[in-house]
Amino acid sequence: MDFRTEFKPLTVQPQEIEEKSFEMITEELGEHDYTEEQFKVVQRVIHASADFELGRSLVFHPDAIRAGIEAIRSGKPVVADVQMVQVGISKPRLAKYGGDVRVYISDADVMEEAKRLNTTRAIISIRKAAQEADGAIYAIGNAPTALLELIRLVKEGEARPGLIVGVPVGFVSAAESKEELLKLDVPFITNIGRKGGSPVAVATVNALSLLAERQG
Amino acid sequence: MDFRTEFKPLTVQPQEIEEKSFEMITEELGEHDYTEEQFKVVQRVIHASADFELGRSLVFHPDAIRAGIEAIRSGKPVVADVQMVQVGISKPRLAKYGGDVRVYISDADVMEEAKRLNTTRAIISIRKAAQEADGAIYAIGNAPTALLELIRLVKEGEARPGLIVGVPVGFVSAAESKEELLKLDVPFITNIGRKGGSPVAVATVNALSLLAERQG
Repeated sequence: MDFRTEFKPLTVQPQEIEEKSFEMITEELGEHDYTEEQFKVVQRVIHASADFELGRSLVFHPDAIRAGIEAIRSGKPVVADVQMVQVGISKPRLAKYGGDVRVYISDADVMEEAKRLNTTRAIISIRKAAQEADGAIYAIGNAPTALLELIRLVKEGEARPGLIVGVPVGFVSAAESKEELLKLDVPFITNIGRKGGSPVAVATVNALSLLAERQG
Repeated sequence: MDFRTEFKPLTVQPQEIEEKSFEMITEELGEHDYTEEQFKVVQRVIHASADFELGRSLVFHPDAIRAGIEAIRSGKPVVADVQMVQVGISKPRLAKYGGDVRVYISDADVMEEAKRLNTTRAIISIRKAAQEADGAIYAIGNAPTALLELIRLVKEGEARPGLIVGVPVGFVSAAESKEELLKLDVPFITNIGRKGGSPVAVATVNALSLLAERQG
């Protein structure tokens, strides 16, 4: 094909770029109270957002890292709230243990049911996930309503997540949904405030799967 | 299916959430120098990031909004640097005018060629796009190397983008690539600094397609 030329640009390789970025992040972040493993997540979130304020706003349930690694290593699925989260998550590392990434929000039955109940597809997709994905890692980067529904289902004993990565972004209900998550006694990773988003959810899950792989 | 229940959660509808968010953004942002149409983009970027600093860092080439609307209304494709950008962009509004969203980074020939030249897939994908997508909107949310390559191709007359949405995120080359873009005399939308990302690229293109639609 004619886009093939011999011109080789003077850029470093992706792996080198990532290593250099991680060094800069460690240096600029300075002191913090995260454990070594939690810091791997914080670092990757800052790498994905270039936002130290966002990185420093991350909060970990004491059991979050262990639970996340265990879910991945036992092949539990990751449930993404939206497709942007699904496509961003690195699949080969999950597949090694039998895991995959699922997203229900555009399923025909979910869309129908949301219409019938005049509610959001995000909510109905979480109800469907709760039935089909026991022990999953829920990666919610977009929809506060999805996170609030998941919290409700956990309280009622109808959802049993392995880990909740609850980092929706936005002005209406996002910060509030995360405050509710902080009160829940299940493993979670979340952040304080309005910020968050798909890249934060993706970076968190990818950091966890790297930690899972590191254990051999 | 048994995830169907009569329980209707007390949440507002997505449309209402968006409208309320946009009101909050307008109020909190306060004074600014953006035109009414540029502000639609800024507003949607803040909506997607909850980050006013990021919103205020957006810079528009004077011809950017007109060029973006024209590209969409004449059915030019959108070229996304990564799949996260591709899946986030609203397709039906583009399809109305014959447009679509393309991503080349995982094409077999792109991967082969990147390996052969020992360079990044991002760079090679932009070379392929330049051959296949004349007049396209380039939506680059992730890879500074993609943006730098696009700038090089424009300078050499080998790429003719309709609009460059150049908002890569990161610590190595992201801010620098955007500074290079600012010097280019083609329509662009970019921002100052390290921040950016897929949701920023997505929000920008979606705002433009809404503006295109508004023109009837």
